[in-house]
Amino acid sequence: MITKDQVLEIGSFVKDYLKESAASSDQEWVQSFPRAADHHWQHTLNVLANAEKILEGEGASEEQASVVRAAALLHDVSMFTCDHSIHGRVSSEIAEEYLRKHGYPDAFVQKVSKAVAEHGTDLGPIPPDEQGELFSWEGKVLLEADILDKLGASAVTNALLYLGKQGCLSHEVSRDLAAGSAFERADFFRDYIWTTTGRKLAEERFSFFLAFLARLKEEVVDVEIPTVG
Amino acid sequence: MITKDQVLEIGSFVKDYLKESAASSDQEWVQSFPRAADHHWQHTLNVLANAEKILEGEGASEEQASVVRAAALLHDVSMFTCDHSIHGRVSSEIAEEYLRKHGYPDAFVQKVSKAVAEHGTDLGPIPPDEQGELFSWEGKVLLEADILDKLGASAVTNALLYLGKQGCLSHEVSRDLAAGSAFERADFFRDYIWTTTGRKLAEERFSFFLAFLARLKEEVVDVEIPTVG
Repeated sequence: MITKDQVLEIGSFVKDYLKESAASSDQEWVQSFPRAADHHWQHTLNVLANAEKILEGEGASEEQASVVRAAALLHDVSMFTCDHSIHGRVSSEIAEEYLRKHGYPDAFVQKVSKAVAEHGTDLGPIPPDEQGELFSWEGKVLLEADILDKLGASAVTNALLYLGKQGCLSHEVSRDLAAGSAFERADFFRDYIWTTTGRKLAEERFSFFLAFLARLKEEVVDVEIPTVG
Repeated sequence: MITKDQVLEIGSFVKDYLKESAASSDQEWVQSFPRAADHHWQHTLNVLANAEKILEGEGASEEQASVVRAAALLHDVSMFTCDHSIHGRVSSEIAEEYLRKHGYPDAFVQKVSKAVAEHGTDLGPIPPDEQGELFSWEGKVLLEADILDKLGASAVTNALLYLGKQGCLSHEVSRDLAAGSAFERADFFRDYIWTTTGRKLAEERFSFFLAFLARLKEEVVDVEIPTVG
């Protein structure tokens, strides 16, 4: 079983790895996003916290929880070192190397590595239900925890912070949120959730996203002059 | 009574005035906010839409509605021409000049001008209830409509767009929203609402602000490593 100190050590490794690889990256999107490492470390912590909720709700064993905790911390470690399409596989290789070097048991290393690789699967070609059947239980929980960070107030916040950086104003936001990639991504991803606990959290969060849009639409006029008289 | 065409004409005057005065302003905050005129025009439209809701809910007469519509369009017209502490008085002078020039009846001009001046009152020295007694009915409705734009999803959105422009990340937002000027302002202003309809809208919007903060706190980890195991 993984101890709290080991969680802290893995977290420290990931945080440093993100920081150093972002600083030395020659990818254009990384260079134009000055706090990319902070952002992805924060996302990593959110995913770990989401995973804890699923583990508790599903009554996971300590062994399952240990695999998911390590996988959650390591799932995006390669974010700045490779193309996004292969970040699951590359992260799983970095995870495997780290865990072997630190003497974790072989079965544990393999389960973590597998879950991390699975979260990077290209979703879409296979229907959600069938896709879930191809994943390990730990891989499903990791993917759910990852997706939960893209469905609710956190997703709205990240989208608005990004739009603010682009100089958008409030009346452009509801259109961008409702029709843009933040909503499309949330709407697509929420089907890739399989556990009862994950489903409950996903519906709560996606409902909040919709409620935010509805309130914005209620409050912010997006036409030249509203009808009067 | 003010016609729909007159509403469009006043709106057009205000929109142009904001655009031209922002472009020629030597105030530092205006120069560092490239889309300030768009932003304040959008705010003006939101205030007009909020005012329509209050007018309808309170069963206002056509005469009262006409005064409030003109006042809502003109309330922030001087935003870029003077210090904020006197923008109510300066806007009321511009409003008066415009309305006289366009042949509006004297009593109408005086009521619009008074409401616009009242919305710029320094709130705080006098308790909300007593302050309300000093205002005209139209001045109260204008101030309520103005404040409503600072209480809900619109306030959250504007705060996040601003934080995004400063380069903030999601885990810094809940702290900034909860302790920063957006929340303080909303919490202070919501007492300066006197009509039944305004009160209902204000409570809905402020509750949404609080719900947004609660969800963000639920979803976004703001500590180094959450407690596990």
